[in-house]
Amino acid sequence: MAEINRGYVRPLDLKNGRIDLTHGSGGRAMAQLVRELFARHLGNEYLGQGNDGAVLPLPPAGARLVMSTDCHVVAPLFFPGGDIGCLSVHGTVNDVAMMGATPLYLAAGFILEEGFALAELARIVESMAAAASAAGVPVVTGDTKVVERGKADGVFIATTGVGVLREGLELGGALARPGDAVIVSGSIGDHGVAVMSRRENLTFDAPVESDTAALHGLVAEMMATGARLRCLRDPTRGGVAATLNEIAAQSGVGIMLREKAIPVKPVVAAACELLGLDPLDVANEGKLLAICDAADAPRLVEAMRAHPLGVQAAVIGEVIADDHHFVQLETAFGGRRIVDWLASDPLPRIC
Amino acid sequence: MAEINRGYVRPLDLKNGRIDLTHGSGGRAMAQLVRELFARHLGNEYLGQGNDGAVLPLPPAGARLVMSTDCHVVAPLFFPGGDIGCLSVHGTVNDVAMMGATPLYLAAGFILEEGFALAELARIVESMAAAASAAGVPVVTGDTKVVERGKADGVFIATTGVGVLREGLELGGALARPGDAVIVSGSIGDHGVAVMSRRENLTFDAPVESDTAALHGLVAEMMATGARLRCLRDPTRGGVAATLNEIAAQSGVGIMLREKAIPVKPVVAAACELLGLDPLDVANEGKLLAICDAADAPRLVEAMRAHPLGVQAAVIGEVIADDHHFVQLETAFGGRRIVDWLASDPLPRIC
Repeated sequence: MAEINRGYVRPLDLKNGRIDLTHGSGGRAMAQLVRELFARHLGNEYLGQGNDGAVLPLPPAGARLVMSTDCHVVAPLFFPGGDIGCLSVHGTVNDVAMMGATPLYLAAGFILEEGFALAELARIVESMAAAASAAGVPVVTGDTKVVERGKADGVFIATTGVGVLREGLELGGALARPGDAVIVSGSIGDHGVAVMSRRENLTFDAPVESDTAALHGLVAEMMATGARLRCLRDPTRGGVAATLNEIAAQSGVGIMLREKAIPVKPVVAAACELLGLDPLDVANEGKLLAICDAADAPRLVEAMRAHPLGVQAAVIGEVIADDHHFVQLETAFGGRRIVDWLASDPLPRIC
Repeated sequence: MAEINRGYVRPLDLKNGRIDLTHGSGGRAMAQLVRELFARHLGNEYLGQGNDGAVLPLPPAGARLVMSTDCHVVAPLFFPGGDIGCLSVHGTVNDVAMMGATPLYLAAGFILEEGFALAELARIVESMAAAASAAGVPVVTGDTKVVERGKADGVFIATTGVGVLREGLELGGALARPGDAVIVSGSIGDHGVAVMSRRENLTFDAPVESDTAALHGLVAEMMATGARLRCLRDPTRGGVAATLNEIAAQSGVGIMLREKAIPVKPVVAAACELLGLDPLDVANEGKLLAICDAADAPRLVEAMRAHPLGVQAAVIGEVIADDHHFVQLETAFGGRRIVDWLASDPLPRIC
């Protein structure tokens, strides 16, 4: 029988302690980790219910639920401008927001590697808590598993978000029509370049930081314009190129982009040059693409520019009729080229 | 620029193929994996929407949402009676059901190790699809990430479930009262012993199979009795001992169990003897514990026994007043001992 120890329990050593297998065992050590680390930072009335799941109020009257999930495996765990903690909140909040829904709740599952430093885990959970709090979307339920040393890579975080979609609103990748405008909310490629520069220990003249951010506030401002939106997407893995190819295929249309109109920071462009990457293929974590009726594009862009996360918003192209569903680019030199999906991945584990 | 290849695409080699990093890149290879493996088996109208999340109808009128998440890291991936695929459905369906809610939707995130055999992944996804279909709870959205060889262990699956809780129903670990009956739905320890026997290559006289199963049908029958239920829990990691200690602490009560009343299969008891385990500490994946008003216990047990997953249901003890919040056991020999939480974990990666 297990040793009985109901007296003083030594607090977690958040400075020098490490994850061990007992932290995933469902016993006292796991309860302590949850209490002293996860609940301490992420605590809210729902998480505090202490049951197998969270019971949550829902706005009534014709609402539909939106559900989205993401596994976060970014390497390194900490990168300029962010870390896996805030990224795991932003990524999932954004997926829900891209559906046009108001994100309400997050669930978070942690897969921890034996030996992972508790101090790093605490930094990650703090960052996650700050991001959730800033976004106004609480983590309401969670799970923790521990695997043996060498069977994971520090920590993986699976986050799932639910939100509510108001009646009548229909957005989707299959709704783009020839003539629609293609809009981006700001400069592209920042996240991928920031992670890659950290991974490869590259330094550039100017600092490159991830754009990781929660976009639901920007989306709310966009909705408020009444612009006829067809589709919202955040161009993460595979970048703008993959996202637009996906939309083109789903809608059965082509897309023509204007290179000159696409905002790319000079340092990101230079880094991409150096790394042999096309900024269109590089992941973003705080940018969105919007397809909307061309007549509404000017006021939509104006509203986006009035939001801190949309100051560089721009129309970067248009939807065209094309039986091949190609995404094309009018280059700065007046030529045209096809912007394909990536055949292979130059940037694994970017999110 | 990436190679353009819009013609014939070679189908996934589900017999001899292996996961590589392009399967997680957000590009064409990932789209193919999703289409030919995940969507093929798990496909439904919601998953087929093809956006960043799923839009889902919700029953109206005062309903509350229940949300629960679980990371599945069981080793080995295949074990007698189940595998990580069906387990990831059952585990999350059960967590939602234990809240008294009707499970509606699942989200599934896959973390895949480079080099993992596609044939094994296909078996797992097929098992997941069969479990989801049998439970009537579709996988409506998902995510796939790939990490380098040696940075994961084949596959981890994070599943999140949402369900709807009807108005007025209140269940929770803090609601147990002295005098209440403690009920178990069947024999304990099967899952943990099945996984351990496979892991250690042990063979017993009789086969030991995991009890992995979705319990929401049994819960619905229990609800229909009108019995005054306080709390439902599935005793997974840490087993019956951890679960009852958790409830005792949350409710500020003690619990007295009767060893003779606790169903344990002879082969499981023998295996536990051999492995130095107490069946009370061993994980279950198709059993539940119910705390209910003692006066309602007989008809609740009767209703449970009429369900295929509750034929061995039994009252195994009662809630008592105890300032120490001890869980105790009246042994078969007439003695008493304290049933503590596990201090360390004899069975890591059991689910």
